[in-house]
Amino acid sequence: MRILVINPNISDSVTALIGSEAARSASPGTQLTLRTAPFGVAYIETRFEAMVGAYAAANVAAEHAQGHDAVIVAAFGDPGLAALREVLPMPVLGLTESALASACLLGPRFSIIAISQRIQAWYREVVHANGLEGRLASIRALDRPLARIDGIQEDHSQALLALCERAVAEDGADVLILAGAPLAGLARQLAGRLPVPVVDGVSSAVRQAEMLHGLQPGSARRGSMAPPPAKPQRGLPPALAALLQDAQARGASA
Amino acid sequence: MRILVINPNISDSVTALIGSEAARSASPGTQLTLRTAPFGVAYIETRFEAMVGAYAAANVAAEHAQGHDAVIVAAFGDPGLAALREVLPMPVLGLTESALASACLLGPRFSIIAISQRIQAWYREVVHANGLEGRLASIRALDRPLARIDGIQEDHSQALLALCERAVAEDGADVLILAGAPLAGLARQLAGRLPVPVVDGVSSAVRQAEMLHGLQPGSARRGSMAPPPAKPQRGLPPALAALLQDAQARGASA
Amino acid sequence: MRILVINPNISDSVTALIGSEAARSASPGTQLTLRTAPFGVAYIETRFEAMVGAYAAANVAAEHAQGHDAVIVAAFGDPGLAALREVLPMPVLGLTESALASACLLGPRFSIIAISQRIQAWYREVVHANGLEGRLASIRALDRPLARIDGIQEDHSQALLALCERAVAEDGADVLILAGAPLAGLARQLAGRLPVPVVDGVSSAVRQAEMLHGLQPGSARRGSMAPPPAKPQRGLPPALAALLQDAQARGASA
Amino acid sequence: MRILVINPNISDSVTALIGSEAARSASPGTQLTLRTAPFGVAYIETRFEAMVGAYAAANVAAEHAQGHDAVIVAAFGDPGLAALREVLPMPVLGLTESALASACLLGPRFSIIAISQRIQAWYREVVHANGLEGRLASIRALDRPLARIDGIQEDHSQALLALCERAVAEDGADVLILAGAPLAGLARQLAGRLPVPVVDGVSSAVRQAEMLHGLQPGSARRGSMAPPPAKPQRGLPPALAALLQDAQARGASA
Amino acid sequence: MRILVINPNISDSVTALIGSEAARSASPGTQLTLRTAPFGVAYIETRFEAMVGAYAAANVAAEHAQGHDAVIVAAFGDPGLAALREVLPMPVLGLTESALASACLLGPRFSIIAISQRIQAWYREVVHANGLEGRLASIRALDRPLARIDGIQEDHSQALLALCERAVAEDGADVLILAGAPLAGLARQLAGRLPVPVVDGVSSAVRQAEMLHGLQPGSARRGSMAPPPAKPQRGLPPALAALLQDAQARGASA
Amino acid sequence: MRILVINPNISDSVTALIGSEAARSASPGTQLTLRTAPFGVAYIETRFEAMVGAYAAANVAAEHAQGHDAVIVAAFGDPGLAALREVLPMPVLGLTESALASACLLGPRFSIIAISQRIQAWYREVVHANGLEGRLASIRALDRPLARIDGIQEDHSQALLALCERAVAEDGADVLILAGAPLAGLARQLAGRLPVPVVDGVSSAVRQAEMLHGLQPGSARRGSMAPPPAKPQRGLPPALAALLQDAQARGASA
Repeated sequence: MRILVINPNISDSVTALIGSEAARSASPGTQLTLRTAPFGVAYIETRFEAMVGAYAAANVAAEHAQGHDAVIVAAFGDPGLAALREVLPMPVLGLTESALASACLLGPRFSIIAISQRIQAWYREVVHANGLEGRLASIRALDRPLARIDGIQEDHSQALLALCERAVAEDGADVLILAGAPLAGLARQLAGRLPVPVVDGVSSAVRQAEMLHGLQPGSARRGSMAPPPAKPQRGLPPALAALLQDAQARGASA
Repeated sequence: MRILVINPNISDSVTALIGSEAARSASPGTQLTLRTAPFGVAYIETRFEAMVGAYAAANVAAEHAQGHDAVIVAAFGDPGLAALREVLPMPVLGLTESALASACLLGPRFSIIAISQRIQAWYREVVHANGLEGRLASIRALDRPLARIDGIQEDHSQALLALCERAVAEDGADVLILAGAPLAGLARQLAGRLPVPVVDGVSSAVRQAEMLHGLQPGSARRGSMAPPPAKPQRGLPPALAALLQDAQARGASA
Repeated sequence: MRILVINPNISDSVTALIGSEAARSASPGTQLTLRTAPFGVAYIETRFEAMVGAYAAANVAAEHAQGHDAVIVAAFGDPGLAALREVLPMPVLGLTESALASACLLGPRFSIIAISQRIQAWYREVVHANGLEGRLASIRALDRPLARIDGIQEDHSQALLALCERAVAEDGADVLILAGAPLAGLARQLAGRLPVPVVDGVSSAVRQAEMLHGLQPGSARRGSMAPPPAKPQRGLPPALAALLQDAQARGASA
Repeated sequence: MRILVINPNISDSVTALIGSEAARSASPGTQLTLRTAPFGVAYIETRFEAMVGAYAAANVAAEHAQGHDAVIVAAFGDPGLAALREVLPMPVLGLTESALASACLLGPRFSIIAISQRIQAWYREVVHANGLEGRLASIRALDRPLARIDGIQEDHSQALLALCERAVAEDGADVLILAGAPLAGLARQLAGRLPVPVVDGVSSAVRQAEMLHGLQPGSARRGSMAPPPAKPQRGLPPALAALLQDAQARGASA
Repeated sequence: MRILVINPNISDSVTALIGSEAARSASPGTQLTLRTAPFGVAYIETRFEAMVGAYAAANVAAEHAQGHDAVIVAAFGDPGLAALREVLPMPVLGLTESALASACLLGPRFSIIAISQRIQAWYREVVHANGLEGRLASIRALDRPLARIDGIQEDHSQALLALCERAVAEDGADVLILAGAPLAGLARQLAGRLPVPVVDGVSSAVRQAEMLHGLQPGSARRGSMAPPPAKPQRGLPPALAALLQDAQARGASA
Repeated sequence: MRILVINPNISDSVTALIGSEAARSASPGTQLTLRTAPFGVAYIETRFEAMVGAYAAANVAAEHAQGHDAVIVAAFGDPGLAALREVLPMPVLGLTESALASACLLGPRFSIIAISQRIQAWYREVVHANGLEGRLASIRALDRPLARIDGIQEDHSQALLALCERAVAEDGADVLILAGAPLAGLARQLAGRLPVPVVDGVSSAVRQAEMLHGLQPGSARRGSMAPPPAKPQRGLPPALAALLQDAQARGASA
């Protein structure tokens, strides 16, 4: 199968981190296309940045989704995920949603380990939007400035490990989620050293995309995930306009 | 005070509806600036359309907010509201949030009357994101095609009245919310004819903006509504880029 | 417009605090009538005291509401609020409900700063009854004896400021609510010194009363906020008996 | 043991219904004192009426509680229950709380059968305040005028039975609660004819009072059920003033 | 009345603890039969152990329930409780459910004091399954190895008292629940020394069984607590097979 | 990889249905071992039957899990799932949990289609235990007698299709879950004919097992999913006793 992996942010070095972990995670026969947002910010900590990232991801998807069997929005927090799910004909996955799905199969309560204090409020809202706040043991986050977004794993390895251990010992976490594309691959490294199962978003999203591709559950012609009803549009970038128009046409013929 | 009212959609005729009701609602001394999104769709029923509307609203705000004391995002569902609240220095209000605030002062449980079946899922998610699903009696919606978005009030007046009455009689609504910019002004017309208080988003948002302007509660320098932390950005439209940069600078100096 | 502001407690000096902040908050053209409960306790910390305050507020309203456009029950916790809303023909507001409505327009999560340890349980129940516990970051309270109920702001200014700062730094509050009539006016003083928006109940209630007066949303003839159905009564104080009888009659003719 | 049973309403004939069922329910050795509120309304359907009933119940308790081992507030909805629990030295029970406790021991989900449409909103709020809305299958209520409050069981027997059956068949009720003092004793009559267990408030309260008397769990000297902290009071009826003063003194010496 | 009390675990010494407290709690005229599980573990801390205990309890009930008026599953966490309630013709009670019912009549929020760190997750899930997590102030537990399961009260008396006090002072508990059969009887000893009411499961279950026996609320012929529909079975221990067959027959004839 | 698939019920013909769908779902290289419970009932509709099934599944796992990379408990409702997860060293999956994980990746709200009226209460409790009731649109179930448990798909095909369509049209389902091992494979058949994505438990569990096997997230040495602490046991079937003993030993050495 072919998966388009979209970094909704502008950091090519983070895209590389994502790509490496995605490649390590993918089954034989899975091909990955990686794309970085042409506009936006370096990484997402706030709702404004997520709003920009959502629009950027949509533009990337509009240009590149064709020919793929699944699309992954590769930022924790899943900017634009539900929006894209309405208009794309193939499964769309996000890092948070996929990590939550994996975590829920491993134990009743999970903690999320994050890269900055500010990012926690947004993550909590995303967990709430997923209806899973009842299983959230805690969110714990680094509290130091991030010198380089693509070197967090190295620069803060001890602090990240300490956050994980405290989440288990003090918050009752049965599973750990290492959150954020900049931490892609860290779960794989720490799996043996942590006292509970640990997952991250990138590997979960790749594996869950393969899982859905195997299930072939069908697509939505009705309900709130069906293509948007036809209505006038104006001024959108050509690819995005075409994406919406195609979806509307697909919906109308359903 | 000066309020910027942004229609996140491209329908000039809906902007006119919004403007009329906003003008009827405003106190003497309140000045209104109305702006229509330069790109997007005719009205919002889905998450994809809301995502586009959020980005459009942000661009309009970036170009026009300066010199205003408050900004209103004038689409029910509040696309981009929390995002703009992070970056703008003045209060930002949305139709849903404002109508919910008004409704909560009038009775324990409210129903939302909406213009299309499809729109209900998104509205329910917005109420959930506002943490108020416990007070939602029901969402009821028109189930006929909308011939013209700016004539719904006339074309479907009997059906809208019937939805209101059923929400009270069958769902236990203590308050009614007439949802969506296309219904702006209808609450005012129906207030006497309905057996419970009725509010709409536009008048609520204008009045709540005045209310906040009177309170002068201060702005956020910390917490999740403070300006986003400084980080690299690239490729955003100039006004949006400047808005984010200014916010980051304001945050850094806080 | 004319607003009746009822202190459900017997402290004239607290009524004076309320009156000062209400006057500072009111728009030009708003006239305030202040009344103190003729019986009851000095301030409310417990459910028993709230029960007494509710009945006292009802008696005051029964005697003085006529000729006013709105009524404010001026104790945090809103004793008797929903009861009065059923029987009075004009909008009725409470300090808690109004402060919550204001806070919800300023950020996703709020903390409540309170004057005593004991009062916290009751406040939590009131937030729960309002359906907003999902947005409650924390309640923090003074833990020292209160030498004089009308001098708390001066006697405990440092401690109150410290509670505010901890609510933001440790509990994730995006907005602060300074709770209780004895703190009326403090939000106004602290607004500039706190890192997030801060509101109090008195100014919120006055401004929200003006807001509702502007909206003219209509009153309840059906639903659970309509006047109580007619039934025998006996032995109530004359004004209260008349208030109930009038409401029943208004309901019967609706 | 001696139990004081307070009808917070003025209907002597309902007090008689309560007394009959209480007597049928009590164990040998349990003595019952019955008192009717000297002021208030005939029965409670609304929050205003509940507020009046709470104050009336408090006055009755203040005059008559001494010498009893438990006090029952005998109106469904439990007006004044938490307030009285703070100030009385013996256990205080309510019809709703007791019926909920019994029902929760008989099956996962319960329905409440009520005497009027209007009463349902208040009951739902009481279940919510008890934190048990997750187990509430439904509230179903008579929709006809009540010719006489003490003859509902006879006048509407078929309709009440039909409501019970629909709650089981359509709402998934595992247990039925017949709500309201006017229905006291009906559960006993219908127990054999209904397909699920059925409880009412009066018999549950009497039996739960005996249960608590047997447990002797101790009383609250701290926490939110401890006596109210000392503070000035003024103008309360003598018995109520003494009740509060005694409670404050008991609290101060704890 | 006759009550069968089943210890779902193999510890005869814990059965003796349970029996002593049950005897102290029972009213005159209540006869107790005590049975210990013939297979299983010493006490339950985990879901696996609870699963084994549930099956063991069912086997004991199948062999011994006949001739009793109520059955108590005497392990906190209530292993097998809902299952047995479906198949036994008399009321079935559990320690947790009964203690929760008692606690809810004494104050709004309760804390659970437990014997081991590991046991807390299971207890939290049981409270969640009972729909009462909104009233759970905290779970606090011993953190030392348990030298002997039948001597915890003596070996850890100071630590248990300290946990109780912290739950009141720091977590806002209005009521304390001493959880687990190994603590049976401790509530009775501590009742005078703790600042809030305290209950345990064994005495609550015995008293609540008597309470239900007095109410005679009827049994379930429909709903989810009715006997299981008839279907083939195979290979169950004879008594268990007969229990199920009898229940199916009773259900078929209902 | 090697997966052990346990039918916790005694129906060999249902095991065959499960096996066929599991085989159709498995990736090349995945080997399946199928085992039927040696004792129990034909299928699970109630908590008692689930309790029996849990114990039966544990016994089968104890005898056959060794040498496998994952274990699937193949009854909707997941009897014994959390229990087995504590004691087995490899991932353990259930039909419900796996179907929920798949459904959550396809849309916000799901409906469950079930084979009998009685089964619905149990399913709702399982969804609640998974913390996902906020995303449950409805449960709809057949209301006719089941002539043969292995022929439901054929005997009730029209009724099942109708339930699916009503869940989408009337309940707002974005995704459908066909629940219960007797429906294994039906989702595959209906996928094209239904207007929203449809999943079942068997194929989801097989694919999710492969997904987890790919992730290698590590196992629990701490938290509530770690092996049970060592304690005496007695009288368990030899394989089960050994399973528990091994788990305890693994835990002790962690």
